[in-house]
Amino acid sequence: MSRFLSSRLSRLGTYVPGEQPQDRQYIKLNTNESPYPPAPLTEEKVREALWQLHLYPDPDCRALTKALAEYNAVLPEQILCANGSDDILSYIFLAFGDAKRGFSFPDITYGFYQVYGDFYSVPYRKIPLREDFSLAPEDYFALDSGIILANPNAQTGLALELKQIAAIAEKNPDQLVVVDEAYVDFGGESAAALLPEYDNILVVRTFSKSRSLAGGRLGYAIAGKELIVDLNTVKYSINPYNVNRMTQAAGIAALQEDGYYVDCCKRIMSTRESTKKALQALGMEVTDSKANFLLAHHASIEGEALYRSLKERGILVRHFKDQRIRDWIRISIGTEKQMARLVAEIGAILE
Amino acid sequence: MSRFLSSRLSRLGTYVPGEQPQDRQYIKLNTNESPYPPAPLTEEKVREALWQLHLYPDPDCRALTKALAEYNAVLPEQILCANGSDDILSYIFLAFGDAKRGFSFPDITYGFYQVYGDFYSVPYRKIPLREDFSLAPEDYFALDSGIILANPNAQTGLALELKQIAAIAEKNPDQLVVVDEAYVDFGGESAAALLPEYDNILVVRTFSKSRSLAGGRLGYAIAGKELIVDLNTVKYSINPYNVNRMTQAAGIAALQEDGYYVDCCKRIMSTRESTKKALQALGMEVTDSKANFLLAHHASIEGEALYRSLKERGILVRHFKDQRIRDWIRISIGTEKQMARLVAEIGAILE
Repeated sequence: MSRFLSSRLSRLGTYVPGEQPQDRQYIKLNTNESPYPPAPLTEEKVREALWQLHLYPDPDCRALTKALAEYNAVLPEQILCANGSDDILSYIFLAFGDAKRGFSFPDITYGFYQVYGDFYSVPYRKIPLREDFSLAPEDYFALDSGIILANPNAQTGLALELKQIAAIAEKNPDQLVVVDEAYVDFGGESAAALLPEYDNILVVRTFSKSRSLAGGRLGYAIAGKELIVDLNTVKYSINPYNVNRMTQAAGIAALQEDGYYVDCCKRIMSTRESTKKALQALGMEVTDSKANFLLAHHASIEGEALYRSLKERGILVRHFKDQRIRDWIRISIGTEKQMARLVAEIGAILE
Repeated sequence: MSRFLSSRLSRLGTYVPGEQPQDRQYIKLNTNESPYPPAPLTEEKVREALWQLHLYPDPDCRALTKALAEYNAVLPEQILCANGSDDILSYIFLAFGDAKRGFSFPDITYGFYQVYGDFYSVPYRKIPLREDFSLAPEDYFALDSGIILANPNAQTGLALELKQIAAIAEKNPDQLVVVDEAYVDFGGESAAALLPEYDNILVVRTFSKSRSLAGGRLGYAIAGKELIVDLNTVKYSINPYNVNRMTQAAGIAALQEDGYYVDCCKRIMSTRESTKKALQALGMEVTDSKANFLLAHHASIEGEALYRSLKERGILVRHFKDQRIRDWIRISIGTEKQMARLVAEIGAILE
């Protein structure tokens, strides 16, 4: 820490990203990446972009925004692109939060919501999930703050039905309801369908998971025009050119080859279900995940011990220190082969 | 504006990027881009990155950071990479500014410093440049705020000597002195040379101008280790994965083919000097720019009128509405051929 650091920041903790060790080759099941590379058209589109790399990207990402609007059956004015969905989430705290107006979100969810609240001095309230990690919509009725829900939820993988989200939006007409759909393509339902009815819903999406672009950084918001104008005010106040030319090109390619990614998602969901059964056969408890990961635990071993044993055996999974899930590990869904290896190793550890 | 927008933001103006019109093909001399495309190695390196695009990028950009450290003869711990230098500047306001600790900068400079001040509610003071647009170091002695200097300065192109920056750092030992070196490769001297002596200097660099990567978004900071730790705290609190894999690869390629870019810079400087002479021969006043642009005006025509006439003729330059430079236009340095066309068109307009 330097002597120039603002006192506000000197008290902060920061988000800890999933580890990216360089010491050896791991089967990496710890950051919910897709095991499948981007579709072939990506190379062609990115290569085209290379020859204009000396020119600034379009700050409004017009071609990409138009393609996203068509894909989601909304107007281009209802879309905002950014450098990953983390950028969009950060904009949400800056645009719609302040010292008096905070957010509520589950106690177990994406860790960055809390980080943004702390960092931007926006108050937040963590609403405990039920004992079985399910979210009871009535816990979110008539709140005095904005609401952020990851759906399917991070860490647990459990999904809300659209009617449950609609009920939350309905009961909080003067509060913003943010639905973070990072994992929606693995079995969830998108709240974008509710936008015509609820002007207080804002949907956040990413290309990182189902579009094999975690390394490309592309996220976007879908919402009513006015909310998008507000997010754009933040974007234009911080970094208007935040989505580079190559990523814009890769995003357009992904939308053009949608079938490839739909197939990848199907494979991942199929692998998830077979892995789930195999883990249950080993005596593990596994959540009913609609995401590209499973949350699992076994009564005979602590989460951290299992994480460590797997790491020694060349497999990285994610362990969280939060009290409620410290006995669990989160396992990203890789290829069939990777998951067979995982199941075999867990079997060996439990023996 | 939505009904959810924070009242703090509803009062804001935003930065207006240089126009990127899509209606026709212009000679684009309005956003200080390089006229030369990235070096050939860029394609190979980016293509390699494509096959890992489904995996998150290294948040610490280790390979790129190491290459940048070697290039700048500092330690890797003295470098932080981000999604364009705008990201770095934004981090600086967040890390080192607050309601009580502001920044001072010239009245004519990069417009974003003011935008960040307004956006993050960090107070700022604009110190007028002298009548001839020169910056008098003594105007910055013993200030009660941090200092941000673009060197060479944005809009004017005028450069400070290292000893002038050293004097400012010397006279403000308890204030952070940020030196934004976006244009340093076109004839300026880098304050990185002063880092061993002054722990209050923080240098900001970009690949957008001299490294032909405006479309790739890559900026970085060079400073003492503690300052870098502070900037990283901000980065890890907002968007740890902010530099995508393709851009990291392109940055490494740029450093490996440094000779290509040094040649590009030489050509741009040579073109700048010949363009300057040609404009002076037309009776224009032109600043002594050490950047990849010229600030020029002619007594017989208003800046906005000249900008408009050039636009009608298919050439985009930049006009600013600020009182002190509204009679001027800023002309980015393109190819010899583009500049010959510019000079011919200005000649025709002035006839």
